[in-house]
Amino acid sequence: MTFDLTILGSNSATPAYGRNQTSQVLNIDNKLYLIDCGEGTQLQLNRYGIKSSRIKHIFISHLHGDHYLGLVGLLSSMHLNGRREELSIYGPGPLKEIIEIHLRYSETILRYPLHFIPLVDDKERLIMENEQVRVYSFPLDHRISCTGFRFVEQPPLAKINTKVCDKLDIPAHLFSEIKRGADFIDTKGQIHENADLTFPPKVARSYAYCSDTINSGSYHQYIKKVDLLYHEATFLHEMESRAKETYHTTALEAAMVAKKVGAKKLLIGHFSARYRDLDPLLTECRSIFPNSYLALEGRLFHIEN
Amino acid sequence: MTFDLTILGSNSATPAYGRNQTSQVLNIDNKLYLIDCGEGTQLQLNRYGIKSSRIKHIFISHLHGDHYLGLVGLLSSMHLNGRREELSIYGPGPLKEIIEIHLRYSETILRYPLHFIPLVDDKERLIMENEQVRVYSFPLDHRISCTGFRFVEQPPLAKINTKVCDKLDIPAHLFSEIKRGADFIDTKGQIHENADLTFPPKVARSYAYCSDTINSGSYHQYIKKVDLLYHEATFLHEMESRAKETYHTTALEAAMVAKKVGAKKLLIGHFSARYRDLDPLLTECRSIFPNSYLALEGRLFHIEN
Repeated sequence: MTFDLTILGSNSATPAYGRNQTSQVLNIDNKLYLIDCGEGTQLQLNRYGIKSSRIKHIFISHLHGDHYLGLVGLLSSMHLNGRREELSIYGPGPLKEIIEIHLRYSETILRYPLHFIPLVDDKERLIMENEQVRVYSFPLDHRISCTGFRFVEQPPLAKINTKVCDKLDIPAHLFSEIKRGADFIDTKGQIHENADLTFPPKVARSYAYCSDTINSGSYHQYIKKVDLLYHEATFLHEMESRAKETYHTTALEAAMVAKKVGAKKLLIGHFSARYRDLDPLLTECRSIFPNSYLALEGRLFHIEN
Repeated sequence: MTFDLTILGSNSATPAYGRNQTSQVLNIDNKLYLIDCGEGTQLQLNRYGIKSSRIKHIFISHLHGDHYLGLVGLLSSMHLNGRREELSIYGPGPLKEIIEIHLRYSETILRYPLHFIPLVDDKERLIMENEQVRVYSFPLDHRISCTGFRFVEQPPLAKINTKVCDKLDIPAHLFSEIKRGADFIDTKGQIHENADLTFPPKVARSYAYCSDTINSGSYHQYIKKVDLLYHEATFLHEMESRAKETYHTTALEAAMVAKKVGAKKLLIGHFSARYRDLDPLLTECRSIFPNSYLALEGRLFHIEN
């Protein structure tokens, strides 16, 4: 099953050096999930050939402009491009009011159903589930209410051991039950245990997104052992006091978080406009957590088991 | 005196083919006036090396997203970049509410004074005046309340005829009065008329901006004899009925307007996303009004007397 992340933008606060503000597209089994939507996201989608019509769910972490100011434009373009499929937006409660005021004054009545799911930032909450994925929101620690998101693949099915199953002459219509854990009882009444009929399933993959947060530790419990962790790393560690002041994280701290929670791979982003060259941020991370990467625009990261 | 227009974007409704939505910067005597502010305008300002700190006045024609969705991001970046100078925004009344709601939920208190001047779309109105320019708003005819803008240079001063003035031994400190039309009385009491002391001033230049409008004729009275006319031309004339339906103009109609009002030069923009190649729109215009140009991003148009 596809489980890929494409970066559309990862600059913080103000765009700089042609770098766009935060937005990402997660592709799970060819369904697209948009995470944050900074100004210019619809242009970035065009640039990377990603059809916005394929996006069914949008997750907004908080109401600082660099994380959501592209949303109304995207909703409007979906409308103008004739979208009819429903769209769900998960975000802070007041976002609904913001969307509605724009639609009201432009006298726009969307042609597609828009569902708004307000997020509550008190604890981890399951906010969405379908056949492919469960999505959880959890509180981050920022200047204003801000939630991270964890995407967890639905438990993959076991794989049929065809050699054994063929030998036992198991009819094919039972395979889907066996993949889900059923045993097999043959015509003589003998029970063949599921473990003998299958190869164990792969472990469910997970991706956690920590958009803007001070490294307070309060949210570490929600991102344990994720396969891929995106964590903001606005500053170099020499700017630690500025990071604390603005409720942001340094690159070194992001690496420490990744190590502490046992993440397999770390992506850093939300780069301050003060850094033209981002390599020092990456070097700082890798000094603690070698499997670190920059969340650069247009890059695709495959999330592996 | 500088009187230049730089195009930052001119695509309509949805961005397409890398073309950005409507925004322009007018440079009058090295002061910058931003006209409309589609999504991505701050990125376009960066791209063309135009410092947003130099912008003191922003004019928003109407509340369709492609004309203003970049505004809040720009205001926020000005704030984050430490702006202290005051900024004036001229736009439809509800724009104030839209700006305020964004600032409220992001808990942003701007570091600079922001003045909001609501526009009334009943008739031509003088909305701003300084030493360089007078700016008028006037009603256009669109689906929602929409105003155009006319920028008229303050009447240029006459030029001193140094040959005559030297001969009459006129003291230099009188020149500024003479440039403004004063006569000169010499020691014998003889009056030397201003016309003999000066060369006639250049005619004041003007620029008119018609963002989104059906070609109803109601607004033609406000754009007579402008030196440069920007007029939307969303469609080719073969789409005339679609243009009427959506309260837009065709390229042929834009050219007819330019001809009728006696404009010197025509710029067309607000191109529909259906046109990858814009040349047919220009060809259509030039068949009626040869001095027509496409408002392409990054192009600078010098407004001549």
